[in-house]
Order: sequence, then C-alpha cells, then structure tokens
Amino acid sequence: MRWWGWGEDGHDGPVKPGARAMLTDVCGWPEGVDNPPVALEDVHLPEADLPDAARARFVELLGEEYVRGDHTTRVSHAAGRSYPDLLRLRSGDVPYAPDVVLYPATSEDVDQLLAICHEERIAVVPFGGGTSVVGGIDALRPGFRSCACISLARLDQIVSIDEESLTATVQAGVFGPDLEKRLQAKGFTLGHFPQSFEFSTVGGWVATRSAGQQSTGYGRIDENVFGLRCSTPAGVVELRSTPASAAGPNPRQVFVGSEGTLGIITEATLRIKRQPASTLWDAWFFPDFASGAAALRLMEQTGLHPDIARLSDVNETAFGLAQLGSETQRKGLMAYLKVRGIKTPCLMVLRYDGTASETKARKSAGRWIAKKHKGISIGSTPATMWEKHRFSTPYLRDQLLTDGMLVDTMETSTPWSNVEALHDSIRFEIEQALTDRGTPGFVLCHISHLYTAGCSLYYTVFSEQQIGEEMEQWKALKTAAGDAMIAGGGTITHHHGCGADHAPWLPKETGELWPRMLRAAKAEIDPAGIMNPGKVMNGPDAL
Amino acid sequence: MRWWGWGEDGHDGPVKPGARAMLTDVCGWPEGVDNPPVALEDVHLPEADLPDAARARFVELLGEEYVRGDHTTRVSHAAGRSYPDLLRLRSGDVPYAPDVVLYPATSEDVDQLLAICHEERIAVVPFGGGTSVVGGIDALRPGFRSCACISLARLDQIVSIDEESLTATVQAGVFGPDLEKRLQAKGFTLGHFPQSFEFSTVGGWVATRSAGQQSTGYGRIDENVFGLRCSTPAGVVELRSTPASAAGPNPRQVFVGSEGTLGIITEATLRIKRQPASTLWDAWFFPDFASGAAALRLMEQTGLHPDIARLSDVNETAFGLAQLGSETQRKGLMAYLKVRGIKTPCLMVLRYDGTASETKARKSAGRWIAKKHKGISIGSTPATMWEKHRFSTPYLRDQLLTDGMLVDTMETSTPWSNVEALHDSIRFEIEQALTDRGTPGFVLCHISHLYTAGCSLYYTVFSEQQIGEEMEQWKALKTAAGDAMIAGGGTITHHHGCGADHAPWLPKETGELWPRMLRAAKAEIDPAGIMNPGKVMNGPDAL
Repeated sequence: MRWWGWGEDGHDGPVKPGARAMLTDVCGWPEGVDNPPVALEDVHLPEADLPDAARARFVELLGEEYVRGDHTTRVSHAAGRSYPDLLRLRSGDVPYAPDVVLYPATSEDVDQLLAICHEERIAVVPFGGGTSVVGGIDALRPGFRSCACISLARLDQIVSIDEESLTATVQAGVFGPDLEKRLQAKGFTLGHFPQSFEFSTVGGWVATRSAGQQSTGYGRIDENVFGLRCSTPAGVVELRSTPASAAGPNPRQVFVGSEGTLGIITEATLRIKRQPASTLWDAWFFPDFASGAAALRLMEQTGLHPDIARLSDVNETAFGLAQLGSETQRKGLMAYLKVRGIKTPCLMVLRYDGTASETKARKSAGRWIAKKHKGISIGSTPATMWEKHRFSTPYLRDQLLTDGMLVDTMETSTPWSNVEALHDSIRFEIEQALTDRGTPGFVLCHISHLYTAGCSLYYTVFSEQQIGEEMEQWKALKTAAGDAMIAGGGTITHHHGCGADHAPWLPKETGELWPRMLRAAKAEIDPAGIMNPGKVMNGPDAL
Repeated sequence: MRWWGWGEDGHDGPVKPGARAMLTDVCGWPEGVDNPPVALEDVHLPEADLPDAARARFVELLGEEYVRGDHTTRVSHAAGRSYPDLLRLRSGDVPYAPDVVLYPATSEDVDQLLAICHEERIAVVPFGGGTSVVGGIDALRPGFRSCACISLARLDQIVSIDEESLTATVQAGVFGPDLEKRLQAKGFTLGHFPQSFEFSTVGGWVATRSAGQQSTGYGRIDENVFGLRCSTPAGVVELRSTPASAAGPNPRQVFVGSEGTLGIITEATLRIKRQPASTLWDAWFFPDFASGAAALRLMEQTGLHPDIARLSDVNETAFGLAQLGSETQRKGLMAYLKVRGIKTPCLMVLRYDGTASETKARKSAGRWIAKKHKGISIGSTPATMWEKHRFSTPYLRDQLLTDGMLVDTMETSTPWSNVEALHDSIRFEIEQALTDRGTPGFVLCHISHLYTAGCSLYYTVFSEQQIGEEMEQWKALKTAAGDAMIAGGGTITHHHGCGADHAPWLPKETGELWPRMLRAAKAEIDPAGIMNPGKVMNGPDAL
C-alpha cells in the first residue's frame, strides 16, 4: 500500500464528467483545488522514543533487520485508511506513529514480543494489511511512553489443509490474493472478498469480524472460524477446531472481533469450500429501493440465498452509472428503463455459485422473484461491470480528496421490518448535519449482506471539504450517522469493526455493562493494558 | 415433570426382551432388583435457611403465593435430570435444595429479585424446565448461607412476532410445545426440538446453548438468537436484534451459554421460519459406521443439508431395533440385510423439510449419495419409527435405574477427519473404565448434528450399577469419557451444556486463560458471585 492512500499507484482514475456533474449539483465542487499528499520526507512524526533496553531485547529475538524505526516504515505503519487517517497522512501532520516496527517470524516470536512489551510497558498495535477504516491500528499510546507496531507480514504460511473436513489452518499474515491462489490451486476457496481483499490479511479479517462481498453465500469470517491461536501478554490461548460446542460462553466469538485488544491472533482454522464449477451473474433494475429490498428479502427467506446480493438505492445507482459506464450507455439505459416505467432505477446485482444445474435453477428462481417485484433486467452486464470495479472504489476516494472533496463510508445492519425507516433516518441525519455546516452532502446507500432476519445498509457520503475544519466536519458527519444508527435500531458497524472511531457508540449500543465486562476480561490477560490501547472497549468516550 | 425422574407418569415401558438380552450379554443384568424411588415425603432435604428479612422482601415484591418453601416445591427444584441427580433424588438423600423458590411475573420482577439477592448475599439458581443433564441447576451455594431458586414459569408470553423479519420475541419461561403451538398457528416454527422439548423452556435453551434434533436444518439456538434481555445483579443487559455486527467481541455469544452464571435471560428474540409445506423421511442401513459417516459428510458438504440427519453405530442400531420394533420385524430385517451383504447394520435417519418439489429433489439427491456409500433402504419406516419415539428415550432410563442399571449419555463434536478415531477412542476409554470396576459397559453412539467441518458424536452407556458405589462408578465413567474427548480433539459437550459436571474440563479444553477471563467478566456484573455458583467457569475443579 502506498503510505498516503489506498493500494498501489496507477489505479487512480479521474471522476468522470457525469459523476462530477452529479456531485456538483448536490454538494458543489471546489473549483481549482489540487490538494495532493505531501512528499514522504515532509511528513512530520513525533520523535521515536524507545528505551534502549527494550530495543536490545527486540533485536536479540528478531535480529536487526526485523526491528525497524526508519521514517518510511514508521509512516507506513502509523495509521489505517479511515478518512481522518487520510487527512492526517496527506497533510503530513501525523500526531502518532509507532516508535518501532517489529517483524516476528513465528507465533512463538509474537508470544515473546508480547512478554517483552508487557515487562517494558510498551503499547502494542498489531498490523496486518493496514486497511482499517475505523482507526483500528492508529498508533495510540495513552499512558505509555512507547508504542511498538507488530507486523504479521512474515507469518505468511498456510499451515495445513484438511480436505476431508474442508478447513484450512492459516497464519495471520497471509494476504487475501495469496490465500485464494493457494487454496484455488487445490480446488478450494475461502470465498472471503472484502473490498480490501487485495491488501488485507487473514489475521485482520478474523480480528475485526470481517465480512466480504460474497459473505451472503460463503458466510462472514466469524461464521467460518473454527479454531484460533491468540498470543496475549499472559500467555497463549489456543481454541481447538471443533465445529460446535456448548461448553459455556463462546470464546471464539470473543477473540474474533477483539481487534488486537486482547492479544494477537497468529493463526486461525477456517472453513473452506470447494470452488464452484459455475458462477452465474444477474442484474435487475427496480423502480424503488423498497421493491428491490422486498425481492432480496424473499430470495433470502425462501432459501434461494444468492452468493452475492447487492441493491443500490437511487443515488448510488445514478452515481455508479455515471462513474462506471459511458455517457452514451447511461442515456440509452435510462431511456429504455423510462419506457418500461422506471424513472429512478435501483440496481440489483446477484451472483449464484455452484454446480451448473444448481446455479441455473437458482438464477431462474431469482428471476421469478425479481419480476414479481417489478424488476426489469437488461442482462448481466451491469453485474459484470460491478465485478470489474469491485476492489477499485477506494482509489476514487484518493482522487476526490485531492480534488477537495470529503468522502466517507459507514455501515450498519437491521431487521427487514426496519430497513426502510432506518435507511431514511440515517440519510436524513447525515444530510442535516452536513447542511448545518454549509456543505450539503450527497448520500449513496446499498444493501450488500442478506440474513433471513435482516440485512446490512452501507452508506457512501460525499461533500465539499471544509478547508481548515476538515476534522470537525467529519466528526459532525460521523456523530450524526452513528447516533442515527443507534437511535434507529441498527448496530454501529456491520463489518468495518469498532476501532477507535466506533468505540464511543459501543456502550450506547450494548449498554455500559458489556464494555465493563470486556475491560475486566481484558485486564485478566493484559493487566498492563498494552494491547491496542484506545480501541474497542478501551476506546475514547467521545469523538 | 415428576420430581424423581423424567416427564410424566404413564410413559414408562419395560425394557423389551431382545434389548434386555443384549444388555445382559454384555453387561450382565441385576436379577431380582427392584429399586424404585423413595416416597416424596421420605426425601431428606437440608433444613431451609432463609433470613426473615430476605423473605419479607421477596413477599413484598411477589406476594405470599409466589414465595414458596414447602417440601414438594423444594424437592422439585433441587436438581436437574443428570444421572447423579437421579441417584440422589431417587434415594431420598438430597444434599442440597433451594431454601425458597420464587416465581416472578415479569422481567422487572427478576431485576428486583437479583438486586435483593445481591444485597442479602443469597445464591441464585435460575430454573426453566429443570431438565439439565449436567448439574446445571443443582442448588449449590458454596460460601452462601441461603439459596433461592428463581423459576421463570410465569414469564410465559410470546411478546411479539415480526413476520417480515421472521423473528419472534419470547419470554424465557415459555415451554417448547406451547411455543410451537402458538408459532405454528400463525404458520411459523422455531424448529428447535431437543429431546427435552416437552419439558424445557426457551430461556433454558438460550442459556445452555442448546441444539435440537432438527438443528442440522434449523440451526442451533446460538445461531438463532438475535436479541436478548438479561437481568444481572448489576443491572440489565439488553442486546438489540441486529442480524449481524462487527462492533467488537460478540456479547450474544457470551450470554448465550452462560447458564445463569452471568444473570437470568428473561427474554430472547429468535429467528423463526415458515412451516414447511412438505416433510419427507428417509432411512438407510450401512454396512459400517464409516460408510454412513462418509455419506453424511458428503450430504452436508455438497449443500444437500438434511434437516434431520442421524447415523447410529452398530451397537445403537442393534439396541434400537431390539427395543423399538417387534422381534419378528427385527429378524426379518436382519435376514434381508444379510442377503444384501450387511451383517452389522448402521441405521441412518433423514428428513427433508421444504416445498414439495424441494424435498423431493433433495431426497432423491440423498438417495444417490447413500447408494454410492453402500446404503440399503427398506423405505422410511425406520425413520418414522424413530420419530414416534424421539422424545421418549429418557423414560427408559428411569425404568433401567429401577432395574439396577446405570445409564448415562454424553456428547461431543469433532472435525470429519477425526470422527472415526475419536469415536473409537471414547468408546474404548469408557469400556475400559467400566471393565476396570468390574461392571462391563455397553456403549451406543450416533451422529446427530452435521456441519461442513464436522459433526457431533452422542454416546449412551449402559452398565450394571455398583450398589453402594454408584457415584464413584459414575465419576469413573464420566472422567474416562471427558478425558477421552479432550485428549482426542473433541469438545467436552456439543449441546448438553457445561453445568457443574463438565466444569472441570473447561480449562482443559480452552486452557486456563479463558475461564479466568470469564470469571473476571462475571465479577464485574455479579461482584458477590451469587449467580448459579459452582457452575461453568466457577465450577468445581474436579469431579
């Protein structure tokens, strides 16, 4: 990942004229702004401050090569990829960075490093791919002199594949593409494709309770973790790979989602599947969001269960058509849909994985449901177009920041009976908060994960940046969105995780007792509180 | 439930001659033993000891009628239905019983009762249906003068049904048959049918991480809980009904399975399903356990996913045929199977729920897999025969205890690749332990819950009782089975729960750190440790 933004160079495309016109229309557009990131050497970090004794112990364990404190390494491990992270990185004014970045080679190295950090009272931030969008790996160190970032980059092995039980035991530092390549070579897949897939790791997925674009079909990561190994300052927790257990409260579901606050997950045993012989795409346009949502609900509740299911609202559909296709295509499509009675289309993208006969039958059943809900299809092209761009949207954010625009995303989940009300109220509150600051917002939304009881809602928000008050503007937006989610019966996050940014809403969502229980449990295995401080149950009380 | 055993009078059948001959052959049979339970009035309980001040506060809140301390009420709330519980109850020598049984009418009553019990330092045991087979509701009170049993019997309302989201919010005290009756009247089902279904409650299922006979299709209770309300001594925890969340460690999966040690679950929001239009049974005989297990594995991993799937090993099949059918039927069947090459059959029972076309297609796919694995079918009669007796096996245990026999059950789960090895080693260790005591055992086993990664193994053990050393004999059996499960890569319990009986194995399964974390979390909301003491993380260290 490039240090100041998403992914690698060469993928940034400009905002297309149609999309830009749409944003300009609603939000305005900061004319003549060109606000690129500062040069790497101009990034200002706090002076590194690591006691010599601690450094010596790290070097003794790992060797000089794997104990790094150079400027480039510190900058590239200072933060994740949230909007505030990007503001700080691009401006060159980075208020926190690890004093040292450590590269253990084995799980046992991690055990040793945590023991040393506990003894030396050094804060620890675990680092997988560095893609957190919720401040989950910001190098915070409240109450500690020094902060060590532990990169799992060298824990990159697939330990074993149990072809009979369809599980794979994988080290935490394996990146998405590498995992899939090695699984697919043997005919398997994990089927876990978050938008960050190319730059995120197995350990990161497990630690943050990740969900991927195919999780409707393949399951969220928390449904696919059977066993795991977690290093903690008090020792190692090893949870065996049993498919189910009634032995009291479930420890897997406490370590999964702990985001480095309880320890470092060094290895996990995951459910894998055989690669599907056939995948069929389908795409539909609906006259409104409610019709499309009702169709998705029926698909899920009748067991049709698409492997990918996404429904964009009117704004997201319009923006997507303007940004992804050509203007001629877009106009032709809109004219066609208008004749068929759809003026403000909502795009639904579906995929079915399985044997050829299964996918054919499921797609056919899906078509029946879509038609029943006033859907119009122009074939699967809009779906395959979405697939082509499925990992590239974050690059657009980098471009928009350069153009002086605010871009942020946030997500929740709620029961089906509450989808429309929550969808409306979150959008209303976001728009209100941004209008109040004099920077009207353009809000897109989609449904992307289905459950029999409900679904996720994912928001993308655009606005003109308030130059000089970028962070206050973002806080106002974040607060409005988070409060609306909690007040409206959602969760503060469906799959981005808690990190520092969502921590203030944790007690609002669960009440005060659960975070207190978590803090007590944490204190038992991390008595000095060194593990990823300032996040989740130990996060800040307010933004 | 009758106070000394299972269910209601009038369901006890004798052990049939064929089954008795089988047991006699392996274990011997205590000739001339007739060992019925003592009369209720002859049950000896410790003197009730409840401070007057506490009693007055209970009466003030609930009224005299709902604060009971009579002999019958105390006896019937003294213990669950584990083998040691039955030994104690039937002998009339009951070492612990609640000093008072409380019947709150509302969730808020429960809140108040826990506040009073906390202030008065009275141990609390929550009581749903009283069917625990792991010592989960034994009225233990280590360190406390008094013990109050809180019965949820009056919290018997279905609060609401969300037909759009397919969820039902249900009070903890609703019994299985009542729940299903009311859901089915509206066309829905929870599909949760543990063997205790007739006498157990929603709150008990949620608190103990229960699984039912149809959980392969309908999901374990932990997969079906979205929201819950739990009273604790420190206040109420309310977890909202979101279908999925990434907001840190998962609180649902900590309260689910907490077995009253963290608080009392007074209400839960559960996933329901539409009642299936069609259910099709199927039954197969396999030449050995491994062939049947391989067929089940393929059924689950290819997504065929039967709603009920059970495979009995050779011993269980033989015992079942001898006990459930007629001798003529049995002989005819065995002769038929022998001609077809199966001398020691293993019975598989399957059920498919869904639309008529779905169930037909799935049954047909299942037949193909069964045949591929050397299965022979004589139609669905063995399956419907199993269905007829699905809730009645516990009555047989009562009869066998009267006859002087030991009967116990235990269960685990493990990955598919380990099923055969674990199946063998558990049986070997149980047989060894019983032979060592001079009372050879007869061990039955079945698979009853399927996961893509593995399955459950459920054991039934028979032996002659060692008169005068019944408890020592049981401890030897339990220790052998539990140690074999942990040593062999299983879990100490797949769905019976932890209770007091399995507590010694919790740290062996997860390591010491997890129980320490649980104790710390518990101390935060139950600082005096009044909630169900002696169970799960606070259980005894050894049997």
